[in-house]
Amino acid sequence: MLRAWTLQTGMEESEWRRLAELTAVKFVPKGTRLIEAGEHVTSGYFCGQGLFRLFYTLEDGQEYNVGFSLENDYVTSYGAMVTGRPSAYTVEAMEDSAVIDISQSALTALTAHSLSWERFIRHCVERLYIRKEERERELLYLSARERYEAFLLKYPGLDRRIPQYHIASYIGVSPVSLSRLLRSKRN
Amino acid sequence: MLRAWTLQTGMEESEWRRLAELTAVKFVPKGTRLIEAGEHVTSGYFCGQGLFRLFYTLEDGQEYNVGFSLENDYVTSYGAMVTGRPSAYTVEAMEDSAVIDISQSALTALTAHSLSWERFIRHCVERLYIRKEERERELLYLSARERYEAFLLKYPGLDRRIPQYHIASYIGVSPVSLSRLLRSKRN
Repeated sequence: MLRAWTLQTGMEESEWRRLAELTAVKFVPKGTRLIEAGEHVTSGYFCGQGLFRLFYTLEDGQEYNVGFSLENDYVTSYGAMVTGRPSAYTVEAMEDSAVIDISQSALTALTAHSLSWERFIRHCVERLYIRKEERERELLYLSARERYEAFLLKYPGLDRRIPQYHIASYIGVSPVSLSRLLRSKRN
Repeated sequence: MLRAWTLQTGMEESEWRRLAELTAVKFVPKGTRLIEAGEHVTSGYFCGQGLFRLFYTLEDGQEYNVGFSLENDYVTSYGAMVTGRPSAYTVEAMEDSAVIDISQSALTALTAHSLSWERFIRHCVERLYIRKEERERELLYLSARERYEAFLLKYPGLDRRIPQYHIASYIGVSPVSLSRLLRSKRN
């Protein structure tokens, strides 16, 4: 999948092979935190297998899910990596997972002389940005039911892989409200 | 300022001159909408002079400001430009303004063979993304007073250039609450 993406940027085989030379595969058991809120972030990751959630911990201890990363998607705290500031949120594996660990120095080496890699990274950041815009819009315009449907569309099959309260936290309703909403939907 | 930014990416003089060849300056009188919600977007802009606000129009007709663009900043509906979907928000000049109009085809021409331009655009998208992350965090963690202070820090001097109700709309409180908050701050 990563290969398919990079093909779109016209990447040559030799440039593609640089990735394998510069990066490492990392196994992340279920429940492990790949990135902890407050930590400095020096790597971005591509999720080859498994599932992650990205969440903020509010002052009252409640956790607020802002996104998920599934297979063939990247998973990172990109703002923290770019700015050097500590990560504002935590990234946790919800299943046994495997990621490609792309360190900041690997990223610099990949993009140093390669227009294709530079373009590929730009496309990745665009995708991250577009998702933030989408989420902003969803929270402004959609009802809880519509936000649930948007969740199903954005993350196909994820509703069968995670507990319902994690979906409730993502769409911004209480678990009780979500289960009421789903009951009324079936009727 | 744009030149200073591009210098950071190691851009050569000849590459820099391509910008002037491929783009045009556009004057945008106060009150004019540079981008209208629902429109397709085929240009990004760099604000050389003036001031813009970016806002969503809610179902009840209320306007919700999500950001401002001042001098030496870009102003765009980037997600719409990249995806080809209609813009979800409107961009309106709050003062007589002048922008550099960078069409999608100019952008493609600039980045086609230039690592420096490609990198520059990546940095621009990173800035857009980081702002979205920051706003998400501010809305989650900060009180109205702290959001007001964050607004002052992010947009120095802007509080003296726009009506207070536009600031209220940006920090997510009613105009009455904001003026109460500012009164209590002075005492």
